Amino acid sequence: MIKQKISAAPSIRRLPSYLHTIKQLQREGDEYISGTVIAQELNLEPIQVRKDLAITGIIGKPKRGYPVGALISAIEQFLRWDLVQDTVLVGAGNLGTALMGYGEFQLHGLNIVAAFDKNPEKIGKDIRGVRVLPVDTMEIQIRNFKVKIAILTVPSPSAQETADILVRAGIEGIWNFTNVKLKVPEDVVVQKEDLSSGYAMLCVTMNTARESRSQPPKA
Amino acid sequence: MIKQKISAAPSIRRLPSYLHTIKQLQREGDEYISGTVIAQELNLEPIQVRKDLAITGIIGKPKRGYPVGALISAIEQFLRWDLVQDTVLVGAGNLGTALMGYGEFQLHGLNIVAAFDKNPEKIGKDIRGVRVLPVDTMEIQIRNFKVKIAILTVPSPSAQETADILVRAGIEGIWNFTNVKLKVPEDVVVQKEDLSSGYAMLCVTMNTARESRSQPPKA
Repeated sequence: MIKQKISAAPSIRRLPSYLHTIKQLQREGDEYISGTVIAQELNLEPIQVRKDLAITGIIGKPKRGYPVGALISAIEQFLRWDLVQDTVLVGAGNLGTALMGYGEFQLHGLNIVAAFDKNPEKIGKDIRGVRVLPVDTMEIQIRNFKVKIAILTVPSPSAQETADILVRAGIEGIWNFTNVKLKVPEDVVVQKEDLSSGYAMLCVTMNTARESRSQPPKA
Repeated sequence: MIKQKISAAPSIRRLPSYLHTIKQLQREGDEYISGTVIAQELNLEPIQVRKDLAITGIIGKPKRGYPVGALISAIEQFLRWDLVQDTVLVGAGNLGTALMGYGEFQLHGLNIVAAFDKNPEKIGKDIRGVRVLPVDTMEIQIRNFKVKIAILTVPSPSAQETADILVRAGIEGIWNFTNVKLKVPEDVVVQKEDLSSGYAMLCVTMNTARESRSQPPKA
């Protein structure tokens, strides 16, 4: 598996929220946007915002900030979100269905061309506009679609065997929503989504808030 | 809203995967675990692992590493995952249902005491063992339950009005799965979950992998 550059990861993770905010300000008619305004909108420090945006290669102009159109392009090109990425989703359960209906993805070029499931009641039907196909045709269908990205939302006990088939079918990137650490060849990228991470953040931040409430403000 | 310490955030986000890995190694009978082993398991740099774990206050012993039991306790206490946190979930749709069935949460002390929805077909029923109650009783029920954390999985157009009710009911922390930037009083913590963040990571990592494949290895 490719080792991710940990130092850049937090910046990359924040880029989608920058994009969301900047597009909103663009709709309001702003031609330039400053790092300070983005920071205020997102409750971040301005220096952090400028550092994060620099990874896309764009540099703001002193006093004016970033030209909005160029900033959007820079982020989208850096993320390759200016291109449509065809993907398949495996496991059309509740989480899979939620992801198929997640409107943001289409704005980011993420196009789910098909879903796979083993439940006969789902096969052949459309869920949120995505056709559900039998999982035992997955390998050949993925080859036909020439899809390189798979979203994995199967139950954890099926995760590894499903990943093996995805790799055989030529998948180069797996977005893994199971809690299984997948074993894949070195050149396959796995992005593991851990919903507990957000809960960890919430717990620590709430605790910090409680502590600051119980302490009198400094003179 | 409380400003999160951005510098510590990536470390906090990684703690749940450390916990998962360490518990696995504990089941295999290990009494000590080194930062290097954790790093290998999680595809990280050892220095990063030691830095991350240091935020919990634990320091490894030279050559032996961390005592496994103490390390688990340190992480769980830091995250307050040694305590049961009662929560409510608002919006029992596909994503809400997926979260109610997410087994990991119980291991982390996250206890969903009730769900709220406006769909009469869901009200009064149990989903994944969680009773669904009518959303218009939410404010009084949350007061009765004395719950301080809410998981928000309503459709985005209802997000702000729901958050307003949650705040009135005494909720101190909102785990926000909608794409709305909620307006809440200063002392309420909002943890916004953005599923696009993981997709951004996947796209950039795949692109890095592609670039390294197309370049001949350095001599």
